[in-house]
Amino acid sequence: MTSNLEINVGLMGLGVVGGGVAEALLGRANVISKKVGHPIRLKKVLVRDRHKPRTPSVPSDLITTNPEEILEDPEIQLVVEVIGGTQPAARYLHDALSAGKHVVTANKEVMAKHGPQLLALAQQKQVNLLFEASVGGGIPIVTCLMNELLANDLHSIRSIINGTTNYILTRMAHQHTDFQLALKEAQDHGYAEADPTNDIEGHDAAYKLAILASLAFHARVGPEDIYRQGISRLQAQDFRYAQELGYAIKSLAIATLEDGSIQARVYPALVPLDHMLAKVDGVYNAVEVDGSLCGKVLFHGMGAGRGPTSSAVVGDLIEIARKLGAATHPVPMAQPDHNFQIQSIDDLESRYYLRLNVTDRAGVLAQIARILGDGNISIASVLQKDSNPAEQTAEIVITTHPSREASVQEALRLVADLEVVREVKNLLRIEE
Amino acid sequence: MTSNLEINVGLMGLGVVGGGVAEALLGRANVISKKVGHPIRLKKVLVRDRHKPRTPSVPSDLITTNPEEILEDPEIQLVVEVIGGTQPAARYLHDALSAGKHVVTANKEVMAKHGPQLLALAQQKQVNLLFEASVGGGIPIVTCLMNELLANDLHSIRSIINGTTNYILTRMAHQHTDFQLALKEAQDHGYAEADPTNDIEGHDAAYKLAILASLAFHARVGPEDIYRQGISRLQAQDFRYAQELGYAIKSLAIATLEDGSIQARVYPALVPLDHMLAKVDGVYNAVEVDGSLCGKVLFHGMGAGRGPTSSAVVGDLIEIARKLGAATHPVPMAQPDHNFQIQSIDDLESRYYLRLNVTDRAGVLAQIARILGDGNISIASVLQKDSNPAEQTAEIVITTHPSREASVQEALRLVADLEVVREVKNLLRIEE
Repeated sequence: MTSNLEINVGLMGLGVVGGGVAEALLGRANVISKKVGHPIRLKKVLVRDRHKPRTPSVPSDLITTNPEEILEDPEIQLVVEVIGGTQPAARYLHDALSAGKHVVTANKEVMAKHGPQLLALAQQKQVNLLFEASVGGGIPIVTCLMNELLANDLHSIRSIINGTTNYILTRMAHQHTDFQLALKEAQDHGYAEADPTNDIEGHDAAYKLAILASLAFHARVGPEDIYRQGISRLQAQDFRYAQELGYAIKSLAIATLEDGSIQARVYPALVPLDHMLAKVDGVYNAVEVDGSLCGKVLFHGMGAGRGPTSSAVVGDLIEIARKLGAATHPVPMAQPDHNFQIQSIDDLESRYYLRLNVTDRAGVLAQIARILGDGNISIASVLQKDSNPAEQTAEIVITTHPSREASVQEALRLVADLEVVREVKNLLRIEE
Repeated sequence: MTSNLEINVGLMGLGVVGGGVAEALLGRANVISKKVGHPIRLKKVLVRDRHKPRTPSVPSDLITTNPEEILEDPEIQLVVEVIGGTQPAARYLHDALSAGKHVVTANKEVMAKHGPQLLALAQQKQVNLLFEASVGGGIPIVTCLMNELLANDLHSIRSIINGTTNYILTRMAHQHTDFQLALKEAQDHGYAEADPTNDIEGHDAAYKLAILASLAFHARVGPEDIYRQGISRLQAQDFRYAQELGYAIKSLAIATLEDGSIQARVYPALVPLDHMLAKVDGVYNAVEVDGSLCGKVLFHGMGAGRGPTSSAVVGDLIEIARKLGAATHPVPMAQPDHNFQIQSIDDLESRYYLRLNVTDRAGVLAQIARILGDGNISIASVLQKDSNPAEQTAEIVITTHPSREASVQEALRLVADLEVVREVKNLLRIEE
């Protein structure tokens, strides 16, 4: 391992995502460098307006408004592009790769339209071009398609990859809101733009599906190959009728490969209520991949926003930085490097479910409640069930507010000793 | 790229998973070699009983009962271990790594108990030790924890990683079966072993959780650090009461890191019915990771079986084989290499949902049905809704059996031209 290697990063764009990446590289440089095995340094940050106030504050000597200060700096081995849009981003990516720099981008539009050419250029220059953040935010679907799932022939991708439309459809379904109102709410929350065309007409999802389908099928699928139907014609009734028929309505991005032919489309569709995709709500995304060996694998997570997108960008960056350091060696492997204390179950803080078989007579619950109260265990609910007059027994089900395991176990021993308690049937924890 | 490089694989074990791996390496050698960039050859296969009949039939000259024929063969660069159990598997892994061979294993027990030592040995020998198949079958959670999610500090893992117990609990919940009967069913289906202790008492899940927690927290978490509670005390009533309280019961494997202290446990717990984990049914597995940047990311897929486990093993094998070929170059990147036809949406075969605003009078449905029938579009259901006597209108919702898009669009044009049809409100596809 080349121990004096330092990896210099040029960051292009300091918006929502760029700010998150800068924060990670500046604020957590030590943690990240440790994971990589070499120091990582943020050397330059390209912005449009030098004087715009920003959080986090990036030292002003890192800031530049001239892209060539990154693209032409031989010390910068790795360029992160989070500007978005087609131009000038595509030009920057092209120039960075041409200059032999590794590139990480979050740019779905550029990758959907120019991905094959840029990847060919990267291969020719023997550098990496990674773009995990271009689809699905914090969901690592791009890398999984490129690597982990590679043993499979993939048959299909079915996905919810536009958070804006999914938020709108979720509101329409749950609050019986009409489309215009749900759109306005999405705009008020910053989930939809003033001109929402790109999202609600399916362009954004088509870019992302083009990327996923190209990777999944090792083929060229462009946004122009994808049929699109927007969500603006949906009305409250559609959700009502769909529900009655046993379906949710979701805007799906689907690509299938069958008999050597690819079918790719983005449209609102009816999805059976018990399907996992029907349960993807709000700004969450999900991608379901169907492979010859793995069967159906579903990935679910936040599809956009500063944190999730930064997770993907910085993940790619670490991946490349590790390879740069590894040279002919394999990448460093996960090794224990923390001596965390391992807690006893006694220290668990949880809610509890307790089922008791008791003698069916007055005052039983009071005795049990007193013991729990003495142990500082607060009762959340009580059900009295299944009275059995012949045996004079009943069942009591108690749920608690958060309590300490050791206290609950101690109280349970006392409860079990009560003459009126025939048997402690079960103690379960409630995971919320 | 060293074009004359050939990668020789030694496979140890030819059971359910080993058979799947052999089938992939023998039957799909060309496809896999293409993905790797170099020929991959299955050179030797270790079995216990040479004469046991097997599917697929592995050429008899590849079969050996002597492990040293793999461990001591200098031509074999990569050993795949799918024997299972602690010994002799642990010894084989140790010897393979000591001999400078890369290793892929599906062995959760060995990785949980001896992972840190084996990983240290691999690092010392500058070889890879990958173990994606040890947890979650076809779900790529191990690699994602080691790589893609590395930008995050992880707070928690909550998972369903034992398919046997999840199958039993799903049966108990949905069929109100009692534990013994559900266990017997699981055994009849081959999901549970004759002695089911390892699964139902949580040992299997504890091995897997030890692996996940060690990776997630960069710490040493052993199976002995994990609290276990089995599922055998659960009764039909518990599911009934839980449901009434708004919960499912799932056997969860959980590890959390808080204030420098790890809490790890496997137990049946109550999970809110609207949580994704409550919806993981049958032999499926799911892992939810909560990270500082990515938020909650959930992975869902088949946790065991020949296909899913082979997907993970062969995925690891491709990963290593690519690196072996790549030397100082970056790994080959996904490039289009297929010229699949891209289908028009006209060729889509789907079920459809059609909503029409019509004049509310007799014979309307007959006219519409005739047009659909003429187009070979078979009706699955009809709802007549929202009669409006003032305007003399009603809504008709029709769902179809699978039909061709072009036929549906053509029929819809004819339907829209009917005098009795005021407006075609929506046409949606049904995705099942």
